[in-house]
Amino acid sequence: MQALMMNSQLMISSILKHAEKAFPTQEIVSVTVDNPLHRYTYKDFGARSRKLANALTTLGAKFGDRIGTLAWNDYRHLELYYAVSGSGMVCHTINPKLFPEQVAYIINHAEDKFIFVDVLVFPLIEALKDHLKKVEKIIVMTSPAAMPETSMDNVVCYETLLEAENDSFEWPEFDENTASGMCYTSGTTGNPKGVVYSHRSTILHALVGALPDSTGARAEEVCMPIVPMFHVNAWGVPYASIMVGSKLVMPGPKLADGETLHKLIEGEQVTYSSGVPTIWMALLDYLNKTGKRVNSLKTAGTGGAACPIGIIETFNKKYGTTVKQGWGMTEMSPLGTIYSPTAEMADYTQEQLIGLQAKQGRCVFGVELKIVDEDNNELPWDGVAFGALKVRGPWIASGYYGMSQTPGDNDCPVDSDGWLNTGDVAMIHPNGFMQITDRTKDVIKTGGEWVSSIDIENAAASHTDIAEAAAIGRYHPKWTERPLLIAIKQPGANIDKDALMAFLKDKLHKWAVPDDVVFVEELPHTATGKLNKLALREKFKDYEFPAA
Amino acid sequence: MQALMMNSQLMISSILKHAEKAFPTQEIVSVTVDNPLHRYTYKDFGARSRKLANALTTLGAKFGDRIGTLAWNDYRHLELYYAVSGSGMVCHTINPKLFPEQVAYIINHAEDKFIFVDVLVFPLIEALKDHLKKVEKIIVMTSPAAMPETSMDNVVCYETLLEAENDSFEWPEFDENTASGMCYTSGTTGNPKGVVYSHRSTILHALVGALPDSTGARAEEVCMPIVPMFHVNAWGVPYASIMVGSKLVMPGPKLADGETLHKLIEGEQVTYSSGVPTIWMALLDYLNKTGKRVNSLKTAGTGGAACPIGIIETFNKKYGTTVKQGWGMTEMSPLGTIYSPTAEMADYTQEQLIGLQAKQGRCVFGVELKIVDEDNNELPWDGVAFGALKVRGPWIASGYYGMSQTPGDNDCPVDSDGWLNTGDVAMIHPNGFMQITDRTKDVIKTGGEWVSSIDIENAAASHTDIAEAAAIGRYHPKWTERPLLIAIKQPGANIDKDALMAFLKDKLHKWAVPDDVVFVEELPHTATGKLNKLALREKFKDYEFPAA
Repeated sequence: MQALMMNSQLMISSILKHAEKAFPTQEIVSVTVDNPLHRYTYKDFGARSRKLANALTTLGAKFGDRIGTLAWNDYRHLELYYAVSGSGMVCHTINPKLFPEQVAYIINHAEDKFIFVDVLVFPLIEALKDHLKKVEKIIVMTSPAAMPETSMDNVVCYETLLEAENDSFEWPEFDENTASGMCYTSGTTGNPKGVVYSHRSTILHALVGALPDSTGARAEEVCMPIVPMFHVNAWGVPYASIMVGSKLVMPGPKLADGETLHKLIEGEQVTYSSGVPTIWMALLDYLNKTGKRVNSLKTAGTGGAACPIGIIETFNKKYGTTVKQGWGMTEMSPLGTIYSPTAEMADYTQEQLIGLQAKQGRCVFGVELKIVDEDNNELPWDGVAFGALKVRGPWIASGYYGMSQTPGDNDCPVDSDGWLNTGDVAMIHPNGFMQITDRTKDVIKTGGEWVSSIDIENAAASHTDIAEAAAIGRYHPKWTERPLLIAIKQPGANIDKDALMAFLKDKLHKWAVPDDVVFVEELPHTATGKLNKLALREKFKDYEFPAA
Repeated sequence: MQALMMNSQLMISSILKHAEKAFPTQEIVSVTVDNPLHRYTYKDFGARSRKLANALTTLGAKFGDRIGTLAWNDYRHLELYYAVSGSGMVCHTINPKLFPEQVAYIINHAEDKFIFVDVLVFPLIEALKDHLKKVEKIIVMTSPAAMPETSMDNVVCYETLLEAENDSFEWPEFDENTASGMCYTSGTTGNPKGVVYSHRSTILHALVGALPDSTGARAEEVCMPIVPMFHVNAWGVPYASIMVGSKLVMPGPKLADGETLHKLIEGEQVTYSSGVPTIWMALLDYLNKTGKRVNSLKTAGTGGAACPIGIIETFNKKYGTTVKQGWGMTEMSPLGTIYSPTAEMADYTQEQLIGLQAKQGRCVFGVELKIVDEDNNELPWDGVAFGALKVRGPWIASGYYGMSQTPGDNDCPVDSDGWLNTGDVAMIHPNGFMQITDRTKDVIKTGGEWVSSIDIENAAASHTDIAEAAAIGRYHPKWTERPLLIAIKQPGANIDKDALMAFLKDKLHKWAVPDDVVFVEELPHTATGKLNKLALREKFKDYEFPAA
């Protein structure tokens, strides 16, 4: 029997329409190159987004066209989020920090028709100009006075474009499964792959992301997304915060500058902010050096990489800020799990809560999680068993752009039962808290046991003489694989292999203690700053264990 | 361009599946006739709901069948909510306090196949047994020991039914627009009309209802829905609370008993509770008489009727409890607006906040509101203009069961532009707060002005000598209509017409002061306790104003 409810589609434009009417005076504050502290209201934001929607029509953009952005977190990028998706085009955010050939590949693969680019990133576009096959126009996101010199003849100024338009525009309503946004994920192997979000997935993700036990977004919050808007839509903050009417503070290109971040937090009384752990490291360093504080900051959201417990402890004990660690993927919009205590944790000590905050968090409503063994049998949520982590839900990718959508196919990330392979190995505690133990491809399989390379790395890095460590599995005639540790010493430290092995024996299961340690001067990293274990395995492909 | 996201349907069963895994030890506490304080966990709740789903199959229930409930707020009713909707049938909640002929009409109109009935309501079913055309079985929601004597041969005991089943059941996935629930709304005219909810509307409503600025539902909350589960799904609490893992406290048949409510709040440390204003009146009376307190209760949600400011003030000033007033309709699942401050209210005084709490609240994301004049022109949100209130959104009815679904038709509540006529007259303030001023059919149209009958009634009721008052429009040769006030004096009071008129002149606009006052001994009310103005207009249909 069909229900008798209105067939209203979930539209990104409905966020903007609601926000303009319900919170006209709320502020959005941005750092940009042409204005160190730009400030306007939701009402202005709505009017300019409608001007931009008209400008897109004038430029010749059509329903379904991909519109690329190479930009930082500011109000113009926010206008693009809403104007592009709201008028039925696809807002394709691109990471300007990728290798130039990756940027060119992504723009060409998505067939972007227009590129909106921050003035600081414009040189990258100029360098790539002969390689961008389908791009008709480049719009530089700045005012006429700040426009760069260029020999290119298809470059337009953002503010000049908007000035020519009026602010009347009716946001169209269409199927909520229409593409609204696109974000490429770049692994260590192969070309970047495009994830395509829908209006439906974006709205559902924003609602669940704003729940009290997720980020708790609300009208009285002052929210600063430090995580870039090209990094899975800044984890959805630009949708959730505006939906609920928060004040937004956008740090522009100053994403990793402790001084700017501190000034914005104190100056705008930021209560909630989100960023990767290295950002928090930069802020804490700055606070530590200057003795300054961040009294307004109640919550620091984090994700993208496991958050070192030192960051969590310092925030909690020194500044009274709770770290909310979450876990997700570009393929998951990204929210899968997030720190949120349950009633049974009401009498936990601060230490116990910090321990929980160091895990990846509790699964949110809407995302189904499971861990499976090598034969795809589901494992219990007992805090002991760990296996390959799979997920399912309405904001999770069914495939990549231009690749197979058939579950079970080799280049489709979804298995034949309809679950997305995350590529992570995890355990889940009885209270629903999930803990990533490794990447599937990095886990070391030794004599039937799975050993987490991350556990070994963390144990090694906890030695004061070790600056960074990587563990990989290498061939062993008896155990198939055994762990090899590759480490960088702290400057001036003179720890040797035996001392480190002895130290690790106290910290790890017997079978997880590496069979050998190699000290190196540097370790390879990917463009997004993660350890490049593929390169390491390649480098050590002929390595043989001494005893073997 | 289509997005590449999983096509996961929004299913009510997904709430239960998530809750069982994420919060297995969380509690649900219920008052029932066979157990004054029943207590079990989400894990038990999940297992018994699956047994009930198997029992429904055993009984012969099929996908789409309507399953009636006549029951109070307890764990068995909750099991029905999930087992019935979760297995693709329609959970049809019926108000046992309606007139028996209305109950029979509703059961027959919905063609309920089975009726689940509380032991206290069973006599009503026995009385109606010859009138229930399609009902195959009556299941009494109690244990064998508490089963009533009956001559009926199709009566089954709920616990006996469950005992025969096992707790393995795979919740099916199907189209999210499938009917999940049904609730009849009874006005002052005509037969009750059935609103049919979907899985999609229920999930979206639960998500928006749980947002921090709506009810703020979360795992650490202890939530007691006093609003009955037959009253628009207890305003959605049974979905939102379980989705986020709150402890639930269900007062069973003791919905209006101040002593029981107090005992439950203190005993279970209830932090959030929701009920109509008369319930709060009963609790505050009990607290006032006994000197007892409700220290754990942070928030009292209210709606269903305008909340008298005295309740809001007493809760705020004496008990430190914030009253969150909301507004909605059976046709709206019900949430449309709710009290929630914005950033600009951060420095409001307690008096200003109480003033805001006395309004109907700010519109939530997902519901579009508009007010229109008599020619359907949209009016501004300026806090001055008022007009007919219309709404639109994914949890709003497109029509009634068995009636026209064509917008603009006479028996369809949706106008030809796709907006639902609420039947209310409202103004909306620039900050998005909405204030109901009257019902469309009760507003008094005098010389081109709209006068709110409720404003006149509130002004009259603020006189200490007046117990209750009703205002209706009556024919006037010059002004078309003029207000007539019909009032009940307080026992022993001897106020006269002139004194009351003089009092009202200070309180109301000149054109809103009634032309006449008639004192009566009683006023007519509907089955749900609202003033029956239709009956009043009928009674005074030949009335003529003295001066006219």
